[in-house]
Amino acid sequence: MKTKGKQSVAFAKPPYVLGEASVVGKMEGEGPLGKYFHEICPDPFVGKKTWEEAESALMEKACNLVLANAGVRRDEVNYIVGGDLLAQLMATSFGVERLQIPFFGIYGACSTMGESLTLSAMMVEGEYAQGVLAVTSSHFAGAEKQFRFPLAYGNQRPASATWTVTGSGAVILGNEALMSGQKQLAPGAKVVITGITVGRITDYGIKDSMHMGAAMAPAAAATILANFSDFGVDAKAYDLIVTGDLGTIGSQILYDITEARGVSIRKNHIDCGVKIYDPARQDVHAGGSGCGCSAVTLTGYLLRKMREGVYKRILFVPTGAMLSPVSFHEELTIPGIAYGIILERK
Amino acid sequence: MKTKGKQSVAFAKPPYVLGEASVVGKMEGEGPLGKYFHEICPDPFVGKKTWEEAESALMEKACNLVLANAGVRRDEVNYIVGGDLLAQLMATSFGVERLQIPFFGIYGACSTMGESLTLSAMMVEGEYAQGVLAVTSSHFAGAEKQFRFPLAYGNQRPASATWTVTGSGAVILGNEALMSGQKQLAPGAKVVITGITVGRITDYGIKDSMHMGAAMAPAAAATILANFSDFGVDAKAYDLIVTGDLGTIGSQILYDITEARGVSIRKNHIDCGVKIYDPARQDVHAGGSGCGCSAVTLTGYLLRKMREGVYKRILFVPTGAMLSPVSFHEELTIPGIAYGIILERK
Repeated sequence: MKTKGKQSVAFAKPPYVLGEASVVGKMEGEGPLGKYFHEICPDPFVGKKTWEEAESALMEKACNLVLANAGVRRDEVNYIVGGDLLAQLMATSFGVERLQIPFFGIYGACSTMGESLTLSAMMVEGEYAQGVLAVTSSHFAGAEKQFRFPLAYGNQRPASATWTVTGSGAVILGNEALMSGQKQLAPGAKVVITGITVGRITDYGIKDSMHMGAAMAPAAAATILANFSDFGVDAKAYDLIVTGDLGTIGSQILYDITEARGVSIRKNHIDCGVKIYDPARQDVHAGGSGCGCSAVTLTGYLLRKMREGVYKRILFVPTGAMLSPVSFHEELTIPGIAYGIILERK
Repeated sequence: MKTKGKQSVAFAKPPYVLGEASVVGKMEGEGPLGKYFHEICPDPFVGKKTWEEAESALMEKACNLVLANAGVRRDEVNYIVGGDLLAQLMATSFGVERLQIPFFGIYGACSTMGESLTLSAMMVEGEYAQGVLAVTSSHFAGAEKQFRFPLAYGNQRPASATWTVTGSGAVILGNEALMSGQKQLAPGAKVVITGITVGRITDYGIKDSMHMGAAMAPAAAATILANFSDFGVDAKAYDLIVTGDLGTIGSQILYDITEARGVSIRKNHIDCGVKIYDPARQDVHAGGSGCGCSAVTLTGYLLRKMREGVYKRILFVPTGAMLSPVSFHEELTIPGIAYGIILERK
C-alpha cells in the first residue's frame, strides 16, 4: 500500500509536472501576478456570445497551450481530469470536447485543481497513464450569474465577499518515459508531485454565501493538519503552504483554527486569493476565489518560481465551498473541502 | 503501463466488489426489479423537507448499507468517489458528509456510476486504497425541478422522454487483503473488475432535453466499440452488455450506429432504463434514466445475478448526457459520455 497515515499517499515514483499553462482575464492580467500568466484575454466574452461559452474558450485555450508548453502530443495524454464551478460542469464539457481525449469530470468547487492533480498523480504513478491533463476554470460573470446576482443588478457586496477569478489553469503530469522524451525544460527545473492528502468534507455550519472564506477555512485547516500528521512534519517542511481562495478573512480564520491546535503556519502561508489582486488598486473586498484562482496562481506564478529555484517544496492546498444555488435557497450549510498536494523541485 | 489499446486499462490484480447496496423509491420497488433491491423507501421525501435532502438521505442509506453488506468498517474505506445530477453535487455533499471519509466528487451525468467504478478500481489496484466506496444517486422530483419543470405544473412529456429513477446505488471495491478478511460472501460468488474503458465526450449535436437517449447513444456506441477494439474482442466476449439509461429509442439508435460499423450487439444487450420499469403497468414513456438508474440495476439486480452464477462476464456501460439547464436555455448541444467496466465472476 502506498497510503501514508489516514488520508495521504506518498509516491515512490513521483509524477512530473511536464508543463503548465495559465490563461486569465483583463483584471487578473492587471494584478500583481499579471506578468507571470501565459496569456491574458482582454475581452471578457473571449469572442463568444455567453459567459459560459467564454469560460469554455478560456479552458480550451489553456488545454492547447499546456500541450504546447509541455511539448506533449495530444495522443500522448491518456486522460483529461477537469471541472469547473458551473452546474453540471458546463464550462468543462464544452471546453475539452474538441480535444477528444478520454475524460473524467470532477467537482470539488474551488478545490477542483487539487482534486484533479490528486487523481491525475495517482493515474500516472499507478501506470494507468503516461500523461494526464489536469484543468479547471472559472469566470467572474458566469459565477455571479449562477451563484449570486446578474451583473446588471449592480448589487452591493459585503466586505467578506470574494471576487471570482476569470481564468483557466492546466497542467500535464507525466511519467519518467514521457519526461525523458521532452526537450523544453532546462535541467534542474523539474517539478514532481511527491505526495497528496485527500480532504474530508468539513462543515462548520456556515450559511452565508458571501463569506466563503469562513466556510472553507476549517477544511483547509483539517487537510493541512492531516498532511502534517500523516507525513510526520510541521510547517517548516515546506517553503510555502499555499491555500486556494480563503481570502483575507478566511486566512485569518485558518490561523485561528490551526493555532488553537498548537500549530502555526502563519510564517510561510500564502493564499492565492490574497496574492492575485492588489487591494490598493483593485476593489475585490476579501480577495479572489473560484476554481481558476488557485489554478492560475499555480500554473502562472508558483510553478515558475519553483522552476527558477525560489521555492523547493510547496504544499498546495486548493479549497472548495460545496455551495449550490439550491442548497443556499433551502438554507442549508456550506460544506467545505480541501486537497493537499506536495510539489517538489527535483 | 497497464493501459490497453487507446482508451482502456487491464487490471493485473482485479479489484473485488466486496459488497453492494441499492436503495430505491416506491415506483422502482413496484417495477420488474423490485424484489432485487435491498431497500425500498415508500416516502418520496424519505422523511425530509425537500427533494434534494431526500436524495441525500437515499445516498446516506446506501452508503451505510453497503458498509454493512460488505462487512467492512468505515475506517477500512480510504475514499468515497461519488456524485449525482444536481448542480454542484448537492445531493452527494450532504449525503456523504456524515461518513467523514476522504472524498472525491465527480460528475459524469447519468454515467457517474461508471466513472466512479473506473476511478475506484484504479485506486484499489494502484495500491492507493484498500477499499473505496463508489456511490451515486438520483431523484425523479429533484431532477425534474432542476432540468425540466416543477412537478406541480403537470406538463406533458413527449414519448422520447425518460423517467429519472429515484434511488441510490453503492459498491465497495477492495483489494485482496480486505477481501480475505471478509466473511459474508459464499465461495465462488466473488466478482472482480478486470478492465475499464474510459469514454471521450461524443457530441452528435442533439439539443432536445426530452430525448436524452439520442444524445447518449453515440457515446455508448463509441465506448463499446473502443472496448472491443482495445481488448480485441467482440460482443460474444460478454454474457451481457449493459448500457445505463438509453431507454427504448436510445437503444435502437445504439443498434443502428454499431450495426453501421458492422458490429452487432443486439443479442446480448440490455439497458437498465428499459429493465427497471414495466411499460405495461408503469407509464414512463422511453424508460428510466438518471445516475440512480444504472447504479441500482447494477447493485440490486446485476451483481446478484453474477454472484448466483447466471452471468459470468458483463460489460457495464453507464451513459451520461452532459446537459445543464443553462446550456439548454442557451441552445447548446448535449454532449454525451460513457464508461465501460468489465465485471467478471471469479
